[in-house]
Amino acid sequence: MNDRIDRHPDQRWMRRALKLAALGPLGDPNPRVGAVIVDAAGDLAGEGFHRGAGTPHAEVEALASAGRRAIDGTAYVTLEPCNHTGRTGPCVQALIGAGVSRVVYAQPDPNATASGGAATLRAAGIEVEEGVQAAAAEQLNAEWTFALRQGRPWVTWKFAATLDGRSAAADGSSQWITGPDARADVHLLRARAGAILVGTGTALRDDPSLTTRLPDGSLQQRQPLRVVMGRRRLPDGARVLDNSAPTLLAQQQDPALTLQQLAVREIRHVWLEGGPTLAAAFVAAGLVDEVVAYLAPALLGAGPPAVGALGIHSIAQALRLHPYDVTTIGPDIRVRATTHAPSPRSTEQEGPGCSPE
Amino acid sequence: MNDRIDRHPDQRWMRRALKLAALGPLGDPNPRVGAVIVDAAGDLAGEGFHRGAGTPHAEVEALASAGRRAIDGTAYVTLEPCNHTGRTGPCVQALIGAGVSRVVYAQPDPNATASGGAATLRAAGIEVEEGVQAAAAEQLNAEWTFALRQGRPWVTWKFAATLDGRSAAADGSSQWITGPDARADVHLLRARAGAILVGTGTALRDDPSLTTRLPDGSLQQRQPLRVVMGRRRLPDGARVLDNSAPTLLAQQQDPALTLQQLAVREIRHVWLEGGPTLAAAFVAAGLVDEVVAYLAPALLGAGPPAVGALGIHSIAQALRLHPYDVTTIGPDIRVRATTHAPSPRSTEQEGPGCSPE
Repeated sequence: MNDRIDRHPDQRWMRRALKLAALGPLGDPNPRVGAVIVDAAGDLAGEGFHRGAGTPHAEVEALASAGRRAIDGTAYVTLEPCNHTGRTGPCVQALIGAGVSRVVYAQPDPNATASGGAATLRAAGIEVEEGVQAAAAEQLNAEWTFALRQGRPWVTWKFAATLDGRSAAADGSSQWITGPDARADVHLLRARAGAILVGTGTALRDDPSLTTRLPDGSLQQRQPLRVVMGRRRLPDGARVLDNSAPTLLAQQQDPALTLQQLAVREIRHVWLEGGPTLAAAFVAAGLVDEVVAYLAPALLGAGPPAVGALGIHSIAQALRLHPYDVTTIGPDIRVRATTHAPSPRSTEQEGPGCSPE
Repeated sequence: MNDRIDRHPDQRWMRRALKLAALGPLGDPNPRVGAVIVDAAGDLAGEGFHRGAGTPHAEVEALASAGRRAIDGTAYVTLEPCNHTGRTGPCVQALIGAGVSRVVYAQPDPNATASGGAATLRAAGIEVEEGVQAAAAEQLNAEWTFALRQGRPWVTWKFAATLDGRSAAADGSSQWITGPDARADVHLLRARAGAILVGTGTALRDDPSLTTRLPDGSLQQRQPLRVVMGRRRLPDGARVLDNSAPTLLAQQQDPALTLQQLAVREIRHVWLEGGPTLAAAFVAAGLVDEVVAYLAPALLGAGPPAVGALGIHSIAQALRLHPYDVTTIGPDIRVRATTHAPSPRSTEQEGPGCSPE
């Protein structure tokens, strides 16, 4: 099959820039950004994408590969070029210096520090067009965009339960509620977060390593920050304190305070695991944005509930979720839903076609 | 699109007979059966299907429409023609009398009383072929086949719960856990059963009418038997005692005994609703064959669990289900699963294409 040919070249080049952006890492402090440079004759001259904090921005990479062909050309970028000097120099200066005559970008920068790029480009006499495929660009960085706007990370709460809502049997046994495919899926999804968070209760009881592993059992290259919340002291040999990934001990029990600690560390997406009490505290504080529930097709009839008391007394107060993805994984059922309506997420955003890993 | 042309005419005619069979009613004491008569020249001569207990069998209807063209023709029947005189005369005698020279059928009759049809036909000099598309024919009457083989009805247990397994909030409010689409779906599915069963607890608390209604609110033509199990007395004005459908008061609490009472009444499929205690008694007795769970994308964190104590203590004892259909209905998730493996059911069996209502 041939690629679909868009009528307008702006749409076509931006689609390519979005595909490049999707090659970038998830869970990074920085957004995933792609850039394409088209020369004055309308031919592809250069392209690039951002590989994560501390590496060149997409525009810079694309300009480098275009070289002098960028002169009088057009730059397509999935995010408004930054105007500030952070870990790297401002991209607007790179674009001006490279001599492009036109810049087309998708999503306006929600970052107060970095924005103003468009104005600076225009002041330099460059034609600027904003908003081409903006929604798709925002989807690519849904958690990042949320975190920048709200000043705190997006929180995904994962739990596993039987069809009747139990996280373990009456005797406490819980290995395994869900099957190996679902457990592998958890590793894939949590690897996309900036941090994995549990309470000291879970850390003490289960001694989890909180690392993300590939299906072959080896550690993934990028490990999310491990966060243990609560005042109880962990034993020296606790797995979460080993050197396989960085760890933050948030030595208090306030969800909002913990998210502030993480926001300061530029964590955009928190993957919340851990017991029903911790999760309930986040829910009660309105600090759960998304739920990923793995439901095993099994009944227990007794045993600890997967979800603890939320302070809800009547059906009218029920926490209604907005599912955007219901699928089976092996014998289990995975439900992904947001607590906001309408959902800022879509199935496509994290589908295999969009976020190769 | 043209119909797919099967290479062998037996396959083609049997497929037609299966389509006819699917026009018959679900929830009936009798199976759904279709029949096609093809004349000696190989042309369609007559067809029929069974419209439920007390009406002519499919073969008789098909022979009547074929008339003298049945002579030296072939009869295609989805079930082995019956050999006994029940509400109607034996079909084998009708086939012999009509002068067909060949009978092809799909499913062998699991009914000890009615079987022997093939032998009688062969003794009369008729060529008999068995098992053409037998699996599809059995699927059409999965509950009936099970009931004939096991001597008790197939039991489908329906429950509705939140994602965390609650059937009501802490204050007891439960209207509505699931949305209107899911509730309408319950009416469609339970209309396919021979009986709807609840306990006196549910009957006293909710005063349900246990009728099956069309989406416009009107009563469906065929109403399943309403069964209330337990020793407590219902008030005279209880809805379940009105004249909109027949009602059986099973004045004891033993699941096996109740199913025996229903088997005697030729109930092949019981739709079990009612509280967690009643359902747990059926589960504990190994008398639940299928679970239909409607899960609302909502969390309550407290309130009565949808599934009561099952006598299960460890994860190894969990009642593992075998899902054959997971789908969303409005905002809710419907999981259909059997307790047996491998499943004698399939999604297709009850899909809209197979069982028009």
